[in-house]
Amino acid sequence: MALQSFIPVHPDSHFPIQNLPYGVFKPQPTSTPRPAVAIGDYALDLYEIALAGLFYGPILKGSDCFLQPNLNKFLAMGRPAWKEARVTLQKLLSSSEPALRDNESLRQKSLVPLSKVEMLLPVAIGDYTDFFSSMHHAKNCGTIFRGPQNPIPANWFHLPIAYHGRASSIVISGTDIVRPRGQGHPAGNSPPYFGPSKKLDFELEMAAVVGPGNELGKPVDVNEAGDHIFGLVLMNDWSARDIQAWEYVPLGPFLGKSFGTTISPWIVTLDALEPYACDAPKQDPNPLPYLAEKKSKNYDITLEVQIKPAGQEDSCLVTRSNFKNLYWTLTQQLAHHTINGCNLRPGDLLGTGTISGPEPESLGCLLELTWNGTKPLSLNGTTRTFLEDGDEVIFSGYSKGNGYNVGFGTCSGKILPSLPC
Amino acid sequence: MALQSFIPVHPDSHFPIQNLPYGVFKPQPTSTPRPAVAIGDYALDLYEIALAGLFYGPILKGSDCFLQPNLNKFLAMGRPAWKEARVTLQKLLSSSEPALRDNESLRQKSLVPLSKVEMLLPVAIGDYTDFFSSMHHAKNCGTIFRGPQNPIPANWFHLPIAYHGRASSIVISGTDIVRPRGQGHPAGNSPPYFGPSKKLDFELEMAAVVGPGNELGKPVDVNEAGDHIFGLVLMNDWSARDIQAWEYVPLGPFLGKSFGTTISPWIVTLDALEPYACDAPKQDPNPLPYLAEKKSKNYDITLEVQIKPAGQEDSCLVTRSNFKNLYWTLTQQLAHHTINGCNLRPGDLLGTGTISGPEPESLGCLLELTWNGTKPLSLNGTTRTFLEDGDEVIFSGYSKGNGYNVGFGTCSGKILPSLPC
Ligand SMILES: [Ca+2]
Ligand SMILES: [Ca+2]
Ligand SMILES: [Mg+2]
Ligand SMILES: [Mg+2]
Ligand code: NI
Repeated sequence: MALQSFIPVHPDSHFPIQNLPYGVFKPQPTSTPRPAVAIGDYALDLYEIALAGLFYGPILKGSDCFLQPNLNKFLAMGRPAWKEARVTLQKLLSSSEPALRDNESLRQKSLVPLSKVEMLLPVAIGDYTDFFSSMHHAKNCGTIFRGPQNPIPANWFHLPIAYHGRASSIVISGTDIVRPRGQGHPAGNSPPYFGPSKKLDFELEMAAVVGPGNELGKPVDVNEAGDHIFGLVLMNDWSARDIQAWEYVPLGPFLGKSFGTTISPWIVTLDALEPYACDAPKQDPNPLPYLAEKKSKNYDITLEVQIKPAGQEDSCLVTRSNFKNLYWTLTQQLAHHTINGCNLRPGDLLGTGTISGPEPESLGCLLELTWNGTKPLSLNGTTRTFLEDGDEVIFSGYSKGNGYNVGFGTCSGKILPSLPC
Repeated sequence: MALQSFIPVHPDSHFPIQNLPYGVFKPQPTSTPRPAVAIGDYALDLYEIALAGLFYGPILKGSDCFLQPNLNKFLAMGRPAWKEARVTLQKLLSSSEPALRDNESLRQKSLVPLSKVEMLLPVAIGDYTDFFSSMHHAKNCGTIFRGPQNPIPANWFHLPIAYHGRASSIVISGTDIVRPRGQGHPAGNSPPYFGPSKKLDFELEMAAVVGPGNELGKPVDVNEAGDHIFGLVLMNDWSARDIQAWEYVPLGPFLGKSFGTTISPWIVTLDALEPYACDAPKQDPNPLPYLAEKKSKNYDITLEVQIKPAGQEDSCLVTRSNFKNLYWTLTQQLAHHTINGCNLRPGDLLGTGTISGPEPESLGCLLELTWNGTKPLSLNGTTRTFLEDGDEVIFSGYSKGNGYNVGFGTCSGKILPSLPC
């Protein structure tokens, strides 16, 4: 039988004792931020657990890593510290362990209902990179923007393409997104359009959170790259397709993306995801030696996107995809990122790119789902080509265990109208 | 007669009392970093000046902004604080003012010879953006990469094109640069090249340092954008042209740039540069209203690049350009950056893009100077197409006053050989 916690966890919960994802929360509006793990319907306050002396292992004993306002210090400590914390917390929360179970005052202090807490960004993000690792997404975008002849650029099968995104505008799930204004592609010889974006989209992504970084000038070997990744979050890379289409030649996406990027609050560790590891797709051509890994690993994570149209009560499933659709693995992405000597720092975010699958109902953005607005989607009796003001987009993701889910919770955001022009 | 300091300043110095650029230094290897201004051959330690109570103005009196290890807090305070600091420091350093001049123990503590200090990055850089604002550079690059028909992309005259760069790998002048390894463009149908970059280049740029930021969702008006810019530094955006050429379609530059970006240590304030303001070029077509500014201002700053070839004693001037060659102004860049709601933070860096002028001897990178390696440059009896191991690249910049220079010092870096493959 699976490990059980003394805290009741509903079988549909994303946060059983097998998961224990890390986040940062405020127990009260005036509190300083505190690290936590999620368990059932509760946040376990790691500040209180550390103060109570319950991290007794050789690495974490006496450490102040959980007295910080973000997880960066813990992430920098690396996998031995992460493993020790996981063993300690799984034991502490298990049904057979009295230390917390039978200590009512500590339970009162350390277990806070998720319904009552404010979640914050779990890490200070130094740099944010966005990859382009789903072949289906690359093919569909190429076809839409550049036509059906050679829709995938020649370099795509040789390297995990990426660009630098904007770190300052990364926000936590639940933050409203103001529709951006900007220049859109002009029709023929007329001057460019200026105003609120008419093609506001979501992009279904996940992002890896970097643990220990690397020194400038010292690349990370692809076979050691896994030890530089702490875990994953859901990520919505909101995109204004009209702004993007006009600005992106020749230096890539800029204002079409930088108005906001939403991440889910709970970082699910690679250690919790290990039971859901699966083989990555076979790569053809063979990658260059610096990208050729001994074991090429993906994860079986079901990903869903729901839209709650403006003014409606119910949300509507618009896509179901899976992390395992990615062609380039997380470890290849990280090794490629550093092959030129670029330094990563703890807390950096590496987005996967839009995770589209091969089926029409597994496409990861409206650009693909509505074929650039030419095939409207039906939603609860209304239709959408792109997002309208008041629409809410909700991502969720989970891996199915035996009687439980190792899940990510949700990553959501609602569109507010643009500022007046 | 021009204002004079009691500290002797050679007429060739970049740091007369009219300049007073800000930096961060360590007086001793074990000291904590301290803010400073440069005066002649000295750094004036603002930590000591603040402790001595010499910032007596209403904004800075009692502030701890100069007790910080970087300038971010001072930058966030905005132009009124910057003006007050300038007035206070110009008075304190002037020949007629006894407070520091006649206080030997404070002079001993607060004036440190520049030859003895280690300069550090002056700000914690949250995000770094690189623009593409010289028309001559855009035209030359377009011709080299895409041919002479329409070398400048259609969007270029409508918006200041930019991309997000890598913040983690920004280094201070004097830091060695390891030649990056990476994939280069394949010849015909052969697999891509992998190894040390064969086309390592510099890019002559300047960068604006952001003062007060803006909230996410709240754009900055172009006519108020000047108050969000503290000052300028020299910047070398090292570029591996072979890596860049292969990776940049469709998402822009990534590893071809992220292995290192060098900035000069002293931030020259816009207030010190104001006497050298000049009209920006007339823009045709007229910019959209959000980019149309009441007064479109450039600065007359002479920029020079020297290369000291590997193994040689002397450096050789390879280009002389001027900041006033930029088509898009700093304030247009900043307003455009925020028009979609993107938030800037104090200490963010906005690179101008390579500052090439119209003349063959004013081109800002080797890609242009050697026409992608087809026309080698002569240097002290040797030749270069791109940079070789051991080469040192030295930028300098200054505006000429009446009997003094308001200068930036230098921004230099030397190429170290790549790691073995
Ligand atoms: Ca994306
Ligand atoms: Ca550049
Ligand atoms: Mg985004
Ligand atoms: Mg660079
Ligand atoms: Ni960044």
